[in-house]
Amino acid sequence: MTPTVARMVAGRQRDLPVPIRWYSIPNIFRYEKPQRGRLREHYQLNVDIFGAEQIEADIEMIRLSSFIMHSFNATDEDFLIKINNRQIINDLYNHFEIPIKDRKIVSHLLDRQNKMSERDFERSLANILGKKTLNFLTVISTGRALAETLSRENENIKNLIVLVERLEANGIKNIQFTPTLMRGFDYYTGLIFETFDTAEENARSLFGGGRYNDLLTLFGKKSLPAIGFGMGDVGMRNFLETHDLLSELPSKTDLYICRASAKAETYIDSLAASLRQVGVNVEVDFTTRRIAGQIKAASKKGIPFITCIGEDEDVKKEVIIKDLKTSNETTVSENKIAQFLIERRSTHL
Amino acid sequence: MTPTVARMVAGRQRDLPVPIRWYSIPNIFRYEKPQRGRLREHYQLNVDIFGAEQIEADIEMIRLSSFIMHSFNATDEDFLIKINNRQIINDLYNHFEIPIKDRKIVSHLLDRQNKMSERDFERSLANILGKKTLNFLTVISTGRALAETLSRENENIKNLIVLVERLEANGIKNIQFTPTLMRGFDYYTGLIFETFDTAEENARSLFGGGRYNDLLTLFGKKSLPAIGFGMGDVGMRNFLETHDLLSELPSKTDLYICRASAKAETYIDSLAASLRQVGVNVEVDFTTRRIAGQIKAASKKGIPFITCIGEDEDVKKEVIIKDLKTSNETTVSENKIAQFLIERRSTHL
Repeated sequence: MTPTVARMVAGRQRDLPVPIRWYSIPNIFRYEKPQRGRLREHYQLNVDIFGAEQIEADIEMIRLSSFIMHSFNATDEDFLIKINNRQIINDLYNHFEIPIKDRKIVSHLLDRQNKMSERDFERSLANILGKKTLNFLTVISTGRALAETLSRENENIKNLIVLVERLEANGIKNIQFTPTLMRGFDYYTGLIFETFDTAEENARSLFGGGRYNDLLTLFGKKSLPAIGFGMGDVGMRNFLETHDLLSELPSKTDLYICRASAKAETYIDSLAASLRQVGVNVEVDFTTRRIAGQIKAASKKGIPFITCIGEDEDVKKEVIIKDLKTSNETTVSENKIAQFLIERRSTHL
Repeated sequence: MTPTVARMVAGRQRDLPVPIRWYSIPNIFRYEKPQRGRLREHYQLNVDIFGAEQIEADIEMIRLSSFIMHSFNATDEDFLIKINNRQIINDLYNHFEIPIKDRKIVSHLLDRQNKMSERDFERSLANILGKKTLNFLTVISTGRALAETLSRENENIKNLIVLVERLEANGIKNIQFTPTLMRGFDYYTGLIFETFDTAEENARSLFGGGRYNDLLTLFGKKSLPAIGFGMGDVGMRNFLETHDLLSELPSKTDLYICRASAKAETYIDSLAASLRQVGVNVEVDFTTRRIAGQIKAASKKGIPFITCIGEDEDVKKEVIIKDLKTSNETTVSENKIAQFLIERRSTHL
C-alpha cells in the first residue's frame, strides 16, 4: 500500500501544502496462503505524513500508534512498541566492516530470525560474518550494547535518545529499542517501529511502519520525506480477542416507539420523521402485538429508551419515555423529546 | 446482494427480534461491461426491514429514500420516486386474461422497453397479446387508466392509494404510480419503487428496491416478510455531478498549530496530545519556516482556526486563536481551547 499512496501524493505534490497528513482504510487483498493474523482479504488503516523530516513526525506516528491501542481500551502492559533505525544499523554494519553487497542479506536474516532454526540462522550469518558472528550477535541483541559499541556521541544514537525521551515525556513508556527489528521493506531509510502483543499466546506483530524518505523520488518528482504505518483489522481482532477487549457494540438506536393503538399510526409516522430529521435514531414497532411483546423486542435489541404511543399522546402532545435499564419514567413534551434523548446518549454507552 | 442478506437473516431468524432493520455499505463487484452509472466495482448501501408486512414498512423505505436524497441537498424537483405493485400487475394480467406462462415474458418486455426500439417492443408484445395489445398498452401506460380499469374497489389499488396519501401527509409528494415499472428481479411480491433523476441529461434510475415476502422461505426457514433497497455510489455520483451538488468537503481539522519558536516543541507536543485526547482534531506544522508560510499552509488546507505557539504561551498558559475567515483573534486559556473549538465547529461547516 505504501508505494501506491506515495505515488498518489507524488502526482499531486505541487497542490498539497506540507505537512501532508493522509489516512485511508481500504479493503485490500493479497494472494497468499491464509494463516492466523494474515488473511487474503482485510481492511487496513494506512496513516502517512509527507513533507516532514523532523523528529516531530516520528513522535506523532508512534504517539498515534499508542493512542489507537488505548482507544481500543488496551493498557501499556498489553502491547510493546519496538523501534529501530536503519541509519543506526548502517553505522553498525560500517563498524563491523560488513561489505555493502552483503548488508541486505544480513538484514533479511535478522528479519527472518524467528522463522528459522537457531542453527540455520547462525550458520547463514557465519557464512557472511565469519569469526565476527558471535560479537555481532552480542552487540545487536540489545540496544544498550549497541549504543555503547557505536558510542553515545554517534549522531543517530543521539537522535534516538531524544526520540525516546520525548515520547516518555508524552507518557509513552512501553517502547523498546530493538536493533534486530528489521521489517522487510527495503525502502525504509530511518526510524522503523512495530507494535507487538505482549500476551504469550498471541506474541506477534500487530502493525508497524517506518520512514521512507527516498520513495517519492522513484516517481520522477522531487524528493519528499515521508513516514507512515499500516494496520490490518485481522491482527487487531486477534489482539482484542486475546485480551478480551472485543465487547458487544451498544445499540445506536435512541428510542423504540411501541404502538399502543392502530389509530395512532399517522401520529407515529410524523413523530418518527421529525425525530429522525434532527438526527435522533428511532425504531418503530410496526406490529399490533401486545405492548409487553413490543417492549421485550426493544429490550432484546439493547435500545435504552421506549415510548408507547396511542391516541392520547397525539392529543396531549407529550409522551412518557421509559428508561429500560432503570425503569424510570419521564413525561416529556413532544418538542423536547430529541433534546431529552441526545442529552442521555453518553450515559448509556 | 438481497439474496445474500436474506440468507444471513434467515440463518439467525430465531435470535433477532422483529422488525429487523439492517443496513450495510459493502464494496461489491460484478463481471459486466462497464458503462455510465454501472462500473465493475462499487460501494452499495443496502437497507432492509425483515418481519414487517405492514404498510408502515413500505412507507419507511420510501421515506428513507427521499430523506437520503435530501441529505445530499437534492430538492424534490431533482428526483422522482416511481412506484408500482406486483399484485396490481397480477390483477391486470388477470383482467386481460394473460396466461400464467406468458406473464414473465410480458414483465420482462415492459422492463426492457426503453432499451428496445418501439417497433420491436410492440411486435414482441403482440406475439403474446394479439389484438389486446393496444388496449393493454393504453391501460398500463398511466396509473389513472389502470386504476379505473381494475376499479378503485380493488384491494391492491386501495392499499396503493393509502400508501400515497400517507406519504403525502409526510411531505413526500414527488411520487408517481408507474404501472410499467418492473425492476428485473422475479422475487418481488408487492411494492416496487425506484428513484429517477429528473434531469434530461442524466434521465436514469438512481436506485430502487421492493418487497420480497417469499424469499426467506427459499432458505428452508419459516417465511419472513421483507422489503429493501440498494443504492450504488456510482449512479449517485453522476446525479450529484449533474445537479452540481458535489461540493468540496470541509476540513475536519479544528486547529492548526504554527511553531513560532523551535524551543516550544515540547509544549506543542503536550498541547496537541491533550487536545487530541478530548477529540479535537489538531494539525501541527513541523517546519521552521516563517509564520506567514505556516499560516498560508493552514489556509490552503481550509482549516478554520490557527494558533502560533512560542515560549510565551508555555509560560502564560494561554494562546491567541485566530479565525482565518474573519481574522478575529481571541485569547483563550489553555484549558478552554477544546471547548472554544468544539463550540465553533458547526458555524464553519
